[in-house]
Amino acid sequence: MGEESEFDLDTERFARRGYPEAVFCEGKTAEQVRAIAARLRQEPGVALFTRANPDHAAAVRAEVPEAHYDELAGLLAWPPTPPPPTGGLVVVACAGTSDLPVAREAWSTVRYLGRPAELIADIGVAGLHRILGRLDLLRSARAIVVVAGMDGALPGVVAGLVSAPVVAVPTSVGYGAAFDGLAPLLTMLNACAPGVGVVNIDNGYGGGHLAAQIAAPTPD
Amino acid sequence: MGEESEFDLDTERFARRGYPEAVFCEGKTAEQVRAIAARLRQEPGVALFTRANPDHAAAVRAEVPEAHYDELAGLLAWPPTPPPPTGGLVVVACAGTSDLPVAREAWSTVRYLGRPAELIADIGVAGLHRILGRLDLLRSARAIVVVAGMDGALPGVVAGLVSAPVVAVPTSVGYGAAFDGLAPLLTMLNACAPGVGVVNIDNGYGGGHLAAQIAAPTPD
Amino acid sequence: MGEESEFDLDTERFARRGYPEAVFCEGKTAEQVRAIAARLRQEPGVALFTRANPDHAAAVRAEVPEAHYDELAGLLAWPPTPPPPTGGLVVVACAGTSDLPVAREAWSTVRYLGRPAELIADIGVAGLHRILGRLDLLRSARAIVVVAGMDGALPGVVAGLVSAPVVAVPTSVGYGAAFDGLAPLLTMLNACAPGVGVVNIDNGYGGGHLAAQIAAPTPD
Amino acid sequence: MGEESEFDLDTERFARRGYPEAVFCEGKTAEQVRAIAARLRQEPGVALFTRANPDHAAAVRAEVPEAHYDELAGLLAWPPTPPPPTGGLVVVACAGTSDLPVAREAWSTVRYLGRPAELIADIGVAGLHRILGRLDLLRSARAIVVVAGMDGALPGVVAGLVSAPVVAVPTSVGYGAAFDGLAPLLTMLNACAPGVGVVNIDNGYGGGHLAAQIAAPTPD
Amino acid sequence: MGEESEFDLDTERFARRGYPEAVFCEGKTAEQVRAIAARLRQEPGVALFTRANPDHAAAVRAEVPEAHYDELAGLLAWPPTPPPPTGGLVVVACAGTSDLPVAREAWSTVRYLGRPAELIADIGVAGLHRILGRLDLLRSARAIVVVAGMDGALPGVVAGLVSAPVVAVPTSVGYGAAFDGLAPLLTMLNACAPGVGVVNIDNGYGGGHLAAQIAAPTPD
Amino acid sequence: MGEESEFDLDTERFARRGYPEAVFCEGKTAEQVRAIAARLRQEPGVALFTRANPDHAAAVRAEVPEAHYDELAGLLAWPPTPPPPTGGLVVVACAGTSDLPVAREAWSTVRYLGRPAELIADIGVAGLHRILGRLDLLRSARAIVVVAGMDGALPGVVAGLVSAPVVAVPTSVGYGAAFDGLAPLLTMLNACAPGVGVVNIDNGYGGGHLAAQIAAPTPD
Amino acid sequence: MGEESEFDLDTERFARRGYPEAVFCEGKTAEQVRAIAARLRQEPGVALFTRANPDHAAAVRAEVPEAHYDELAGLLAWPPTPPPPTGGLVVVACAGTSDLPVAREAWSTVRYLGRPAELIADIGVAGLHRILGRLDLLRSARAIVVVAGMDGALPGVVAGLVSAPVVAVPTSVGYGAAFDGLAPLLTMLNACAPGVGVVNIDNGYGGGHLAAQIAAPTPD
Amino acid sequence: MGEESEFDLDTERFARRGYPEAVFCEGKTAEQVRAIAARLRQEPGVALFTRANPDHAAAVRAEVPEAHYDELAGLLAWPPTPPPPTGGLVVVACAGTSDLPVAREAWSTVRYLGRPAELIADIGVAGLHRILGRLDLLRSARAIVVVAGMDGALPGVVAGLVSAPVVAVPTSVGYGAAFDGLAPLLTMLNACAPGVGVVNIDNGYGGGHLAAQIAAPTPD
Repeated sequence: MGEESEFDLDTERFARRGYPEAVFCEGKTAEQVRAIAARLRQEPGVALFTRANPDHAAAVRAEVPEAHYDELAGLLAWPPTPPPPTGGLVVVACAGTSDLPVAREAWSTVRYLGRPAELIADIGVAGLHRILGRLDLLRSARAIVVVAGMDGALPGVVAGLVSAPVVAVPTSVGYGAAFDGLAPLLTMLNACAPGVGVVNIDNGYGGGHLAAQIAAPTPD
Repeated sequence: MGEESEFDLDTERFARRGYPEAVFCEGKTAEQVRAIAARLRQEPGVALFTRANPDHAAAVRAEVPEAHYDELAGLLAWPPTPPPPTGGLVVVACAGTSDLPVAREAWSTVRYLGRPAELIADIGVAGLHRILGRLDLLRSARAIVVVAGMDGALPGVVAGLVSAPVVAVPTSVGYGAAFDGLAPLLTMLNACAPGVGVVNIDNGYGGGHLAAQIAAPTPD
Repeated sequence: MGEESEFDLDTERFARRGYPEAVFCEGKTAEQVRAIAARLRQEPGVALFTRANPDHAAAVRAEVPEAHYDELAGLLAWPPTPPPPTGGLVVVACAGTSDLPVAREAWSTVRYLGRPAELIADIGVAGLHRILGRLDLLRSARAIVVVAGMDGALPGVVAGLVSAPVVAVPTSVGYGAAFDGLAPLLTMLNACAPGVGVVNIDNGYGGGHLAAQIAAPTPD
Repeated sequence: MGEESEFDLDTERFARRGYPEAVFCEGKTAEQVRAIAARLRQEPGVALFTRANPDHAAAVRAEVPEAHYDELAGLLAWPPTPPPPTGGLVVVACAGTSDLPVAREAWSTVRYLGRPAELIADIGVAGLHRILGRLDLLRSARAIVVVAGMDGALPGVVAGLVSAPVVAVPTSVGYGAAFDGLAPLLTMLNACAPGVGVVNIDNGYGGGHLAAQIAAPTPD
Repeated sequence: MGEESEFDLDTERFARRGYPEAVFCEGKTAEQVRAIAARLRQEPGVALFTRANPDHAAAVRAEVPEAHYDELAGLLAWPPTPPPPTGGLVVVACAGTSDLPVAREAWSTVRYLGRPAELIADIGVAGLHRILGRLDLLRSARAIVVVAGMDGALPGVVAGLVSAPVVAVPTSVGYGAAFDGLAPLLTMLNACAPGVGVVNIDNGYGGGHLAAQIAAPTPD
Repeated sequence: MGEESEFDLDTERFARRGYPEAVFCEGKTAEQVRAIAARLRQEPGVALFTRANPDHAAAVRAEVPEAHYDELAGLLAWPPTPPPPTGGLVVVACAGTSDLPVAREAWSTVRYLGRPAELIADIGVAGLHRILGRLDLLRSARAIVVVAGMDGALPGVVAGLVSAPVVAVPTSVGYGAAFDGLAPLLTMLNACAPGVGVVNIDNGYGGGHLAAQIAAPTPD
Repeated sequence: MGEESEFDLDTERFARRGYPEAVFCEGKTAEQVRAIAARLRQEPGVALFTRANPDHAAAVRAEVPEAHYDELAGLLAWPPTPPPPTGGLVVVACAGTSDLPVAREAWSTVRYLGRPAELIADIGVAGLHRILGRLDLLRSARAIVVVAGMDGALPGVVAGLVSAPVVAVPTSVGYGAAFDGLAPLLTMLNACAPGVGVVNIDNGYGGGHLAAQIAAPTPD
Repeated sequence: MGEESEFDLDTERFARRGYPEAVFCEGKTAEQVRAIAARLRQEPGVALFTRANPDHAAAVRAEVPEAHYDELAGLLAWPPTPPPPTGGLVVVACAGTSDLPVAREAWSTVRYLGRPAELIADIGVAGLHRILGRLDLLRSARAIVVVAGMDGALPGVVAGLVSAPVVAVPTSVGYGAAFDGLAPLLTMLNACAPGVGVVNIDNGYGGGHLAAQIAAPTPD
């Protein structure tokens, strides 16, 4: 399969869009991922591997030993240190431990794409005082990523309090009637407050990418 | 059809459950509704007709001229004045004009079933200060009915602020991805704060009935 | 992860709502759960951990050895003995063995939140005589939790026989067309008898919590 | 179009299956229906037109003046009098006025297909005493058709009380979360009591046809 | 758990309905199933355990060594030999190997409930000649159970060829757009030919039970 | 609006693909459709307007009086006579009157795109003899379009009898559980016989277009 | 109703978020809308009424005669002229006439919220050359709103060609299997190219609002 | 089970349709598959086993050692070498590594059914230049199979560029809101460009089969 996997890469994407392509590891074998890493190693710029399990991580590191691996987020990146940040601040927020893997994937993506980023992990609509206590930080952001499962109400509540765009990431966390993320997805699409753009379920990478684009430095 | 429509009534329900049966008018002809009214007129206690359009109302009033009709709520009742209230306070809350028909149906149902009731029509999660400004009233309730369409986030936010049970009524108000009330229904079932019991879409009568039971005077 | 997991707690909830927060263990690592237990141990009042598997239980008990663990219900609690009951009686009912884990989670939640509680495990709509044989107990309750999978018809049948509110908990038990609890969920939302409030699929904790609020002692 | 509509008929069905074909009028023009009636008039045996509105009825009667039209059920039939009944008794039951059109369509179908039939229009699970009061009639049936909307719980409850097969017909009657009959359809498919066969939503004709086959006289 | 599991049984069902209750093993522990077997052993008549895996089977046989176990169908029964058949013939048909477990569950259920039964395992709509080749057997049946996954078209095709009622059992066999049995379920509910009653997905027991009731000997 | 509507046209499509673009009239005003007709009139080749109601037809004919309008199919075309047919035969088949509008839209599309076409309007799976009676015609086709609502079983049955590709067009005809065409759509996607390609619900134009491409003359 | 409708307004939103509240007219009576207009007239800044039919428009203009009404977009605004634009360019793009109402609602919203805006109405994925011909304009935007029904593929294709964020607005335009906008909604959420944020079906206002926030001038 | 499994085969299919039957291994035991192989070995022509895991492969090879096994595609075939190709070229295209198993199943099926076939594994809508770079090959095909997960937009884009029919195969690859292939399935059914026929999710065999039929040599 090694000869096909190279077809997977769109290495000109950086030139075309200004952002690198990321490799979605889920459903790929470790060997396929390793072959892609071997090829990407020769390209300039940041490389990202998402949804990488420890086997994927080991395979990548066999080719690029210095790659950074955040196991909780399932994210591999190199160079291991994000580039110096430019553009506006991106705040990534979620309600608690269960949504943290997705939130961290978003937060790391933002940083590797070159934006300053902060992570808030303790605000939930069941305790409004926690949201209100972070208003200053939230209002200083150029873009906010809000990650939420269950009722998915947090992005709409945050959007009603700030002027920055909110990128909403539903997660598959919850009881049965959350239907693997369908419930928070619908909630976010129906947010009463305008200013919420929704991405795919559990797609922290996509949420972070969109926020990094929103907060990009304005070209002169 | 007149001879069948009488089968519809469960006039012993009051004796069995302590609450009268309501007649769901939607899908019934005015003549069917009139025949039911003629029969119920002979029974003691409160009579309620829900989802009644003006034709239904005229038909009922042909039999029971003193019946009270709230056209916005689609509710007919007699005796026209609710009984003296007993039990705890029920607060019915919604975000605004679009949800008012359902909220008023709930509010009237509570009153005709014999509870004291208040209606708040101006709180929405997109403006948290409006919720917080009504906390004293919300916290004085024995039961709260929260009516919401679109993202349906309000019941969960309210439940996180009070100790009383919240009865959540989703409405079919919203853009396409609300799917005629499915979105707020799922949101309410997945509310992060415990203490939310959900009833059917646009079912203000059901929400008010459940709240009236919750706030019933404690038997000695 | 230890440093983030502490953000998870809303220890002021007891002061604000009168009920403790519960920790949802599903999707959390044993280490995350242990860290939360270590912190909650220092708080007054009852602590509840739901959806706890044996690994979660061992982790909690490493911090709080006296914690009570009901493996069938997946519930951990301390102090191990529920507080002395106040308020009205809560009856928890289900049809049989398959729904028992959820029913016991509800029953234990009610007791740890301080209400008197009874568990009926042998009534199903396919044998009405079993329901009718328990009418006296059902009618003595201030709130009833009915747990049901498959057709989910039991809550509506019970609600038609009593004056107390019914909290309906759908379960994911059943053949394929139950769609993991969707079928009984819809049945309960469409119950012909008013007085049924529905919570999330398999959410015995949520059902018990709502019932405990309904049956709370009336403030003077 | 008249020349194509004749293709619609499977007039040999009676010979092959022992039951006549029925013409589904919904979506057909009055002229199309008239042309079909003109052709069927020349065939022996019973002819049935279902989902016929008054325009369809007028068109059929222009060809077959003696045809019987039950407007509530939307059913046209000739010869106008059902054949002398053979086989076992079929009981058709529903909860009340809203489900009556479908129940009558089933009841008429049974009679025109040649079985003895009874119609019960006043039993609902919210008042079990009404079901129990009809047990003798229900238990005397060779097949029972149960028509129900909303929670659709009635067929399962009836099936638990009798030994005859139950044909369940869900209707589109109900609040929003009934989703136009989806909720009672799922309830019936998940009935706890075995012995329930389900047909399409609002398909009283199909329910009656199946029951007539079940109750057919046993060939010697 | 042993003390609750006994509540599960409705041993009077045989007296009430004329058919024994079956024990649904899925989701029960081997120990729970064993306890139920121990109690049922003392009751007269046939006992059935459905969805029984080998562990369940071993547990039952520890109590009732003579119980018959059909591993493919997941069915346990005792007495091990079905009763002498009475009533009309039931034919159970499916298209091939993938649907055989469900078809055999239906076929065994029919036999243990006391009807003569035949199993056809090689007819599918993609090869009509195979259906037509079995017409004589199909037309000799008092009731036909048709088991089908994928497009679920077989029951409707069979129903168009015979006068007996068809019980349709959808299975979860198929590619992704079969959605675990939803596609054949809908097909069967929409069968063009009347005379099809549908039961739950993969519910061979339910299909066999209904067919056994349909083919029951006519009481004198 | 006139100035925007011209943007709608992709008049180079014929050069690029060899087939003309069709104008989807549904949701467009008569004036918008007229403006498009005025512009298309100046282009060479066949022009098609689909889903055209009589108002749309009048507006088009105000610009192109010779346009042919098939009201049943909702199709407008000019030049009014289809081009001389080339390529293989396309057979369009449906079960009866209700599916005829969609079948005729497919049949006309095939003819205006330049293929020889036949229409069969009287075959349905509930009467297999009608299908078998047309086998010779079906087997002479290079492509077959099968239009079906309700259970949607016809395309799979036909595909099992022929070697030509089958284009399946589900229709929204049927009772409630057909869910506006979802049921036959799923049936067709799950057809047991390979060789079935499915297009959108009620999309006779799309089905005819695909068949015309399949039956196109082979380039030398 | 006049006294409740005033509760609807959150006139402090401008101070809090920097954007005015819009009034969603759908489901409101003309009188309710008039009363809201009367009150908003006294507030500073831009006022927007969305989903306004001609009756709504007349009612608003009875209070605010100078209000601008775009009937195609269903949008009312005053002051009638948008404020002088600040911030980056927003390009709104759709494929053709059917999606124009939603696209114009987005375009007008952007302009009334103070951003420079361009509208492209003639690009669709079925003709890639039209997209490629507009690349310079698309690449000059700070944010792009892409409106699409049917397959909803356009936003993903555009996102793959530019570095600016794409706001995707699905519309309810299409054949049956578009399920009133569900199909393009899912397509957009699953866009292969990152950088797409999705809003509700047919919600041009929401799409325009989010884009205006993204393109807001960077605070110093 | 061996005696039933032989019923599975429709060995006359080749004579009737001109294409061999394939054996769907998923859900069958290795022993069942072996027994089928033993029987098919005696038939002339190509034999195909789809969805075969390594255990199935070993079982088949125990009977037919020369059978070719493509593990990535899950396809077994013998004779091991495809027949000499006749008819038009079939091009199979997908976007990358994740969709390759399904694409290869399609590609191999085409070849074993006797058509010339090419596989393109590196085109995706997020990088249009890759599609445009393969236009010559795509335009030389008599039929094109396009395999895509996630947004499923590729088939529609390709169809807009060529005159050959496109067979679209959705895959279950993607984030949560792809709902196991539902999203790309709907996208393909709603493709803006006509000329797309859709098969089941992940059904590479079905897609290849249909394409082989389309590209079959024209009979003289």
